[in-house]
Amino acid sequence: MSRKIFHALVDPDEAVKLVLEKVRPHPSGVEKVPLISALYRVLASDVYSPIDHPPFDRSEVDGYAVRSVDVEWSDELSPVYLKVKGRVKPGEKPALEAGVKDAVEVATGAMIPRGYDSVVMEEYVERDGEVLKVFRTTPPGDNISTAGSDISSGDLVLFKGTLLRHSHLGLLAGLGVKEVEVYKKPKAIVFSTGEEVVEPGTVLETGKVYDVNGALITSYLREQGVEAEYGGLLPDDYDVIKDRVQNALSNYDMVFTSGGTSAGVSDLVYRVFNEIGEIIVHGLRTKPGKPTVIATSNGKILIGLPGFPLSCYMILVRVVSRIVSFYTGALHDVKDVDALMPVQLRKQVGKTWLIPVMLVESENGYAAYPVSMSSGAISPLILSDGFLEIGENVDVVMEGERVRVYLFRDIPGKTRLNVIGSNDPLLTEILRLKGLISASRILNVGSTGGWKAVARGEADVAPTHLLDEETGCYNTPFIKKYGLEDKAVLIRGYDRLIGIVVEKGNPKNITTLEDFLRSDVRIVNRSKGSGIRVFLDMALKRIASEKGLDPGKLGRMVNGYTYEVKTHTAVATAIRQGRADAGLAVGYVAELLNLDFVPLTWEEYDFLIPRKKLVKEAVTTLIDSLKHLSQILGEAGPLFKKYYRVSEGSGFEKTCCINEA
Amino acid sequence: MSRKIFHALVDPDEAVKLVLEKVRPHPSGVEKVPLISALYRVLASDVYSPIDHPPFDRSEVDGYAVRSVDVEWSDELSPVYLKVKGRVKPGEKPALEAGVKDAVEVATGAMIPRGYDSVVMEEYVERDGEVLKVFRTTPPGDNISTAGSDISSGDLVLFKGTLLRHSHLGLLAGLGVKEVEVYKKPKAIVFSTGEEVVEPGTVLETGKVYDVNGALITSYLREQGVEAEYGGLLPDDYDVIKDRVQNALSNYDMVFTSGGTSAGVSDLVYRVFNEIGEIIVHGLRTKPGKPTVIATSNGKILIGLPGFPLSCYMILVRVVSRIVSFYTGALHDVKDVDALMPVQLRKQVGKTWLIPVMLVESENGYAAYPVSMSSGAISPLILSDGFLEIGENVDVVMEGERVRVYLFRDIPGKTRLNVIGSNDPLLTEILRLKGLISASRILNVGSTGGWKAVARGEADVAPTHLLDEETGCYNTPFIKKYGLEDKAVLIRGYDRLIGIVVEKGNPKNITTLEDFLRSDVRIVNRSKGSGIRVFLDMALKRIASEKGLDPGKLGRMVNGYTYEVKTHTAVATAIRQGRADAGLAVGYVAELLNLDFVPLTWEEYDFLIPRKKLVKEAVTTLIDSLKHLSQILGEAGPLFKKYYRVSEGSGFEKTCCINEA
Repeated sequence: MSRKIFHALVDPDEAVKLVLEKVRPHPSGVEKVPLISALYRVLASDVYSPIDHPPFDRSEVDGYAVRSVDVEWSDELSPVYLKVKGRVKPGEKPALEAGVKDAVEVATGAMIPRGYDSVVMEEYVERDGEVLKVFRTTPPGDNISTAGSDISSGDLVLFKGTLLRHSHLGLLAGLGVKEVEVYKKPKAIVFSTGEEVVEPGTVLETGKVYDVNGALITSYLREQGVEAEYGGLLPDDYDVIKDRVQNALSNYDMVFTSGGTSAGVSDLVYRVFNEIGEIIVHGLRTKPGKPTVIATSNGKILIGLPGFPLSCYMILVRVVSRIVSFYTGALHDVKDVDALMPVQLRKQVGKTWLIPVMLVESENGYAAYPVSMSSGAISPLILSDGFLEIGENVDVVMEGERVRVYLFRDIPGKTRLNVIGSNDPLLTEILRLKGLISASRILNVGSTGGWKAVARGEADVAPTHLLDEETGCYNTPFIKKYGLEDKAVLIRGYDRLIGIVVEKGNPKNITTLEDFLRSDVRIVNRSKGSGIRVFLDMALKRIASEKGLDPGKLGRMVNGYTYEVKTHTAVATAIRQGRADAGLAVGYVAELLNLDFVPLTWEEYDFLIPRKKLVKEAVTTLIDSLKHLSQILGEAGPLFKKYYRVSEGSGFEKTCCINEA
Repeated sequence: MSRKIFHALVDPDEAVKLVLEKVRPHPSGVEKVPLISALYRVLASDVYSPIDHPPFDRSEVDGYAVRSVDVEWSDELSPVYLKVKGRVKPGEKPALEAGVKDAVEVATGAMIPRGYDSVVMEEYVERDGEVLKVFRTTPPGDNISTAGSDISSGDLVLFKGTLLRHSHLGLLAGLGVKEVEVYKKPKAIVFSTGEEVVEPGTVLETGKVYDVNGALITSYLREQGVEAEYGGLLPDDYDVIKDRVQNALSNYDMVFTSGGTSAGVSDLVYRVFNEIGEIIVHGLRTKPGKPTVIATSNGKILIGLPGFPLSCYMILVRVVSRIVSFYTGALHDVKDVDALMPVQLRKQVGKTWLIPVMLVESENGYAAYPVSMSSGAISPLILSDGFLEIGENVDVVMEGERVRVYLFRDIPGKTRLNVIGSNDPLLTEILRLKGLISASRILNVGSTGGWKAVARGEADVAPTHLLDEETGCYNTPFIKKYGLEDKAVLIRGYDRLIGIVVEKGNPKNITTLEDFLRSDVRIVNRSKGSGIRVFLDMALKRIASEKGLDPGKLGRMVNGYTYEVKTHTAVATAIRQGRADAGLAVGYVAELLNLDFVPLTWEEYDFLIPRKKLVKEAVTTLIDSLKHLSQILGEAGPLFKKYYRVSEGSGFEKTCCINEA
């Protein structure tokens, strides 16, 4: 342990540089594969075109090959008469040559016979037997693509290192290429370590978590063109780790481990690497990412990665992908975009910080919202788009500053819809029916979270059902409270039936919210800020007051009050699994999970939308489907119809409620 | 043939709709695969989280679990003393429970023992045996991620139809998922037709072209998750086509053909489809794309595509990919972006036009430059990013109008470098050495083309070596001529040795440009607008004048004068293959292809760069490498050193040349 302290931590770029200098990684060889099997392989040599394309002067249209001098004076009123000498079909080698005042019929793609210099389209001629009336002049070269005008023989068309996709294979086929030289795929094995992790599919004992990194690293490497295998979990045992890693070195070019979360395990891995090979990178001067260790042994590479999945992921993208590209031979694309910081960000100096972010489209390009999650969270694996790297000497990034975002994956097209706020099954169904689901990012942060996200400019749509205590109105009073009068509009959504979800048969006979105060009843609550939580708190406080209890101490009066989940299905699942007796949710999920349901109220579920986002196609599609909600409910099925109802103004702006007036 | 005329052509969206109504395409089934093998497969059912994540309250740091009430008043000066009762490692189920004024050591990721509500980080305590001095207060919940705070059991985490990537697999592993239900892959076979096409790898007879579509369609479908096979070329024979297609229907869900360019073949395919099945789409009201035919037979689908590769490609993206997604079960992402039209575009009404475009980054997002190529060109397969669809009733798209671009592929990150202008081997090498090549798009349009591209805002960098006849200066005089004084800067590049490339041993004894007028000499020329062409034209005109010949008739005096190619290597290749005796090129390619070289002059090769593009990282990298050109030449190797030389101001702005002053 003490040894490590004496070694300098390095930044990501230095780490890559050290590896390149020490290991000089390169593909293990070259092989020839048939073109049609070369998809996703990496080209091992530059490709120079072996032919001209098109290989001959060819007609771009159906028409007649002519000499432009012969039709120099033709027009609609005084056509020129030519003699049709014959015809050339595509694929045919013409035997004819041009003579004075003659023409040859040519199909699209056919070779132009020698001596003709242009083609007149068939719509500008009239033909009668061998006699052709031409009503247009043609400049030399008209409607002909000349040999090599697209690609000349000898042109460098593809660079070595190109990752071959369908468009490249199409191009190569057109140049007559049947086999291509590609790099052999490098081989890697991926181990996981850590006493607290267990394999997916096994029983999760208390205190343990499922291993994420094995699947993450292995499939990430496969996407990078590596023949990667998952080698399983290694125990916290020096000799076993050493044995497995050493054996792996004889069969693989790269050996990966990912640490547990504790220092102990990463120290074991460090010591093994140090004994087997030479350590090149003793840790990164980044947060997270410090316990990254890279070593080499006989030209092979050993990489130890951090244990927390998101940390592991960022180092994979930032450091590992670049090293791997030298083994695959692929030209390495830094996948990044510029973005604006929408919030101020403070950090300590001395370390480079890597911060996962979500990209949100704005008028000035992208805004990069830090995804604030605990370090062990795994939902950011799919909810974040990439990460920032804030240099070690920087202590603050100002709001509005330009930052570089390293991307986890390609950015989807413009149709992406950021839905941030309240959770609702019908909304999910609408997005699915309208083909928007794959382009949607749905963050269940509760109604209140959605209002804040609109205020910050993050959300395209914030679903909300916030009940205002004073007026008894849903949603409308909050436009003023959040000062969003100019910035956003509230679009009327639909009503949904909310109630108490209980076990099948309602064994504890829970019929009103008063029962939540019973000592034999344990509830599951929704997170603070969700509309249902607001509704429940209001109701419980009223009940407590009526009973002469302290409404500020709900947490002590209601069993399970602090057990919070974020979605309707999570409430229903908790009851279904016996972790709670009751909870509030939309009736739909109760019936879906075969539970019982005590209806309480029809909630007004609406959609807060920033004015600027109203032009977005996905947003207009959503609003439009709200206007045709009856039809949607028909498509969505009877279960939805039972617990949701169309409101009068569905899909139109909602400005006030009756009680406010 | 006549039958088709009676059927209405439809637009792309109608075509898809008709197919969905008639065929109701869907995946053929579901299968379970191990998680680690599910990469790129399509999820067949929604995934609800089976567990809470984290599964228990766990520590986010190394430190001590405490009760916040016990450390309520601690600070640097008056620490609170607690008793350390024990330790919890990650993965361990703690046997302890909290007591008054005690603490338990917890590692990052360890479970919090019952009763503690916060963790104080190890840097804020001092420990002496069992005695712990705590220097900080901790609010309840501090440094703890509570069970389910990331994902709750029952949360809908992934939608069916998700194309599984590494991040999804990582997430699923973390939820304990070991096997996933995915859709079975649909099967497709791809045939090509057309008398003029031959298989890649065979001899290219005069009048024939290599088949592009077989490789293009097959690999495109594979990228879409289809098990696609290439079935070969079908002859122009009704019975054979019918036989092959009918047989294919018993083994495949989808049968593809692509037409030849002539109407005859697509008519054959149409008639076969009509006999075997029911025709749903009789052609598209698009240009190109009209001969697209879609039919169905017993729930299977037959798709006939246009013959020209680029037409075929656009219909694949616009129509086929959407139909295919119903077979694969994948949620279909419309890959598109908004862009500005940088030029006015006119078209005829009555048909929807599909126009390939190149995307160029500008301050207002993307600009979509139409790629003007002949319809049979194949280089746009890789040079264009997507295509516009201009509606049938539109006759003009104004400059500055917003248009939607359907993407052929994901857009690369911000580092893309558009290099438009003169062709040069050293430039390619610099881009390669600097890791810019994969993010560069290099269009060889000659120096003049590059100046125009800068004027239009298309190019990031325009390499140029234009000689001004009046002043004898390279490049600088053209800044004024193109009116680019405010808009662009000229960066000094390097000198390169230009000369006459001849066959090895120079059998025709070609030693000066005068020899180009000899009747026994045939040359290969460069395209109009290229710097070398300008140089050659100037020289030949001077020679002609001196000899008393008409300098306007070079085309008649010089054999091969009209044989134009676009690159240096294409010149050298033409000579090497005996298609010409001489041509002008940089000496580097002559030696590379083992030819002889007669040096003529050191050209000034510079880089015209729009001022706005000077902030682009890839541009600064390029300029910086020009400043360190000696080093680059060292890395590039001796052959480059022989034919290129560093100039005094390499990498710095060049404002005038001596002759101008």
